[in-house]
Amino acid sequence: MSKNTDGFDHPSRIKTLREKMEEHKIDLTVLYERENVRYFTGWRQNTTSFSILFITQDDLIYFVPKLDKKAVDKECWIPTSKTYVIPEDPAKKFKDLIDNESETIQKIGIESETIFNSRLKNIEKNFDCELSDVQPIMNSMRIRKTKEEQNNIREGASALSGVMTDIIDMAQEDMMEKKLTAEAKKLFDTVGGETYSFEPFAMSGENSWLPHRTSTEKRIQKGELILIDMGLIWEGYATDITRTFVLGEPSEQQRDLFEAAYEAQKEAKKMVKPGVKAETVHEKANEIFEEYGYSEYFPHLTGHGLGLETHEDPILDKGQDIELKPGMVVTVEPGIYKEGVGGARVEDMLLVIEDGHEELTTANRMLV
Amino acid sequence: MSKNTDGFDHPSRIKTLREKMEEHKIDLTVLYERENVRYFTGWRQNTTSFSILFITQDDLIYFVPKLDKKAVDKECWIPTSKTYVIPEDPAKKFKDLIDNESETIQKIGIESETIFNSRLKNIEKNFDCELSDVQPIMNSMRIRKTKEEQNNIREGASALSGVMTDIIDMAQEDMMEKKLTAEAKKLFDTVGGETYSFEPFAMSGENSWLPHRTSTEKRIQKGELILIDMGLIWEGYATDITRTFVLGEPSEQQRDLFEAAYEAQKEAKKMVKPGVKAETVHEKANEIFEEYGYSEYFPHLTGHGLGLETHEDPILDKGQDIELKPGMVVTVEPGIYKEGVGGARVEDMLLVIEDGHEELTTANRMLV
Repeated sequence: MSKNTDGFDHPSRIKTLREKMEEHKIDLTVLYERENVRYFTGWRQNTTSFSILFITQDDLIYFVPKLDKKAVDKECWIPTSKTYVIPEDPAKKFKDLIDNESETIQKIGIESETIFNSRLKNIEKNFDCELSDVQPIMNSMRIRKTKEEQNNIREGASALSGVMTDIIDMAQEDMMEKKLTAEAKKLFDTVGGETYSFEPFAMSGENSWLPHRTSTEKRIQKGELILIDMGLIWEGYATDITRTFVLGEPSEQQRDLFEAAYEAQKEAKKMVKPGVKAETVHEKANEIFEEYGYSEYFPHLTGHGLGLETHEDPILDKGQDIELKPGMVVTVEPGIYKEGVGGARVEDMLLVIEDGHEELTTANRMLV
Repeated sequence: MSKNTDGFDHPSRIKTLREKMEEHKIDLTVLYERENVRYFTGWRQNTTSFSILFITQDDLIYFVPKLDKKAVDKECWIPTSKTYVIPEDPAKKFKDLIDNESETIQKIGIESETIFNSRLKNIEKNFDCELSDVQPIMNSMRIRKTKEEQNNIREGASALSGVMTDIIDMAQEDMMEKKLTAEAKKLFDTVGGETYSFEPFAMSGENSWLPHRTSTEKRIQKGELILIDMGLIWEGYATDITRTFVLGEPSEQQRDLFEAAYEAQKEAKKMVKPGVKAETVHEKANEIFEEYGYSEYFPHLTGHGLGLETHEDPILDKGQDIELKPGMVVTVEPGIYKEGVGGARVEDMLLVIEDGHEELTTANRMLV
């Protein structure tokens, strides 16, 4: 009952990574990114700390905070003999641990984009060899979800849809935006989520057309467009949903704005199927906004992949020519924000399947 | 009412930075760290995105996500003429913007430890000059809180103490650990906080001696030591508190463990005053645990500074010879975790003042 690991097949993920490392002639992979590390360890790290994973063909060393050592050894699948408290000089410690093996390390895979400068320097100080970006390999492994991952994400999306329904039901005139998202945060945990996938926000009236992206102490009013964007983490996997609604009667302009956003979403969703390029989904949404004369108010992408991260491949945006394939999970969320009128966005999560897609989020999409 | 900025004097902070830059002959400072950027802009960034600040003696350029541009221009103190959407190549764009000035840039201050490799490369590609770590300057500016910051932190700590009291009152046999922290998260926002400063956790029984550091679905029971560690963000500033309690009757061993932890905290708190070294506070806690015969169960630091970050200077730990000074805010939280018995930790926030310290957190510290 003191579970702090997810239920996935981590050894088989390590096996796949090792095959890809061999293919790319990478002798050692060093991972610092929380989601990459969790992908292999299943271990949920406290938000204030980090851990490090070193992987070779023959070895796997997991460096964890001193405070977590006992819990990791009790609950994580990685053998106790392979876990160590994070040392002063991780790369040196790793070299010492694998001893002879270290001489054969010619190429190291790192998270080139996001690795901290100090951590990179630590690797460079200890290994005089070629560095290679391992993130494309990680992305390729994580982008198409297995049946088990799909089931997990499906459950999370369903729980999230329930929370959205409850929050919309709760919304009343004069309630603070913050009150709505405070209730959502509580519900995320009580329905079985781990936490939120991003700080949820409700934005109403002017806040919706700015758009504000944080909940404030502003009180929601009748006749305002209200957007709620939220997501929870379900056994490590992120979910995401947005709804737009009005208390009372929307104006003509608000109705038109919402109709355009919802229509763009519906048409873009139809494009979500195997073989379609990511950018094509975005182009479709843009096409609809052009018909409505709203394309200048559409400032963002149409959607993004979801998995251990809230934003990961594939990205449904201009210039993204990656082809959709079964097992990918994406949001579709074209949005428009017009000064004096409001913001409008409907966001759902879709799983790409052989003959199209499966919609993972539900919850009423109606404006009123 | 749609406030998304804190109420501090940001231009005067910029002025101080510029003086320190002059002193260290730094011509340009580039900041990516959320807290450093917020320190100068006052702008609260959505958790999924980032922004970048470039500062010279004569200029200040703020790069923000496209989606935030309008809101930043409306609410942030930085003039609209100085804010831009984050470009593909930020260092290049900055160079173009300042034009002639860029020729005189000989030394650039960066966050050497934590800057992403790709971001560092972007700076190195555009500027062929010396790089210098600017974090020590940032730390020196942020470590002693101004009266306004102190007032803010005092308010936050008071709100947090109220939440802790409510949560302890709420605790009942058979309640899930997660339920307790879910309620806390909701309360953080409803009492006026922005969000949590770290994922709050309740840990009971075995989870408390591991120690677990995440709330689980385990239900709390009578006769178990229960630790709750939580903090909220109040207008950007972090707070932090821990309490340990038992429902029903504690065992002799539990009483003894708690008494040692509480005694160590009380004695360590007495050391928190100007002129005392940070490590001395830690040594004092350790001394008490030695008297009780528990020092082997004390696996962490005694405390840490609090400000825009939840963990910042000064760190009350072995080898930290920094002297405490008025205006510093620290936690004091020695803790011990013994298999089969439980964990015990009492954590409070203290403000160092001329003649000692002011206790910022309250809430009942009793075991039962």
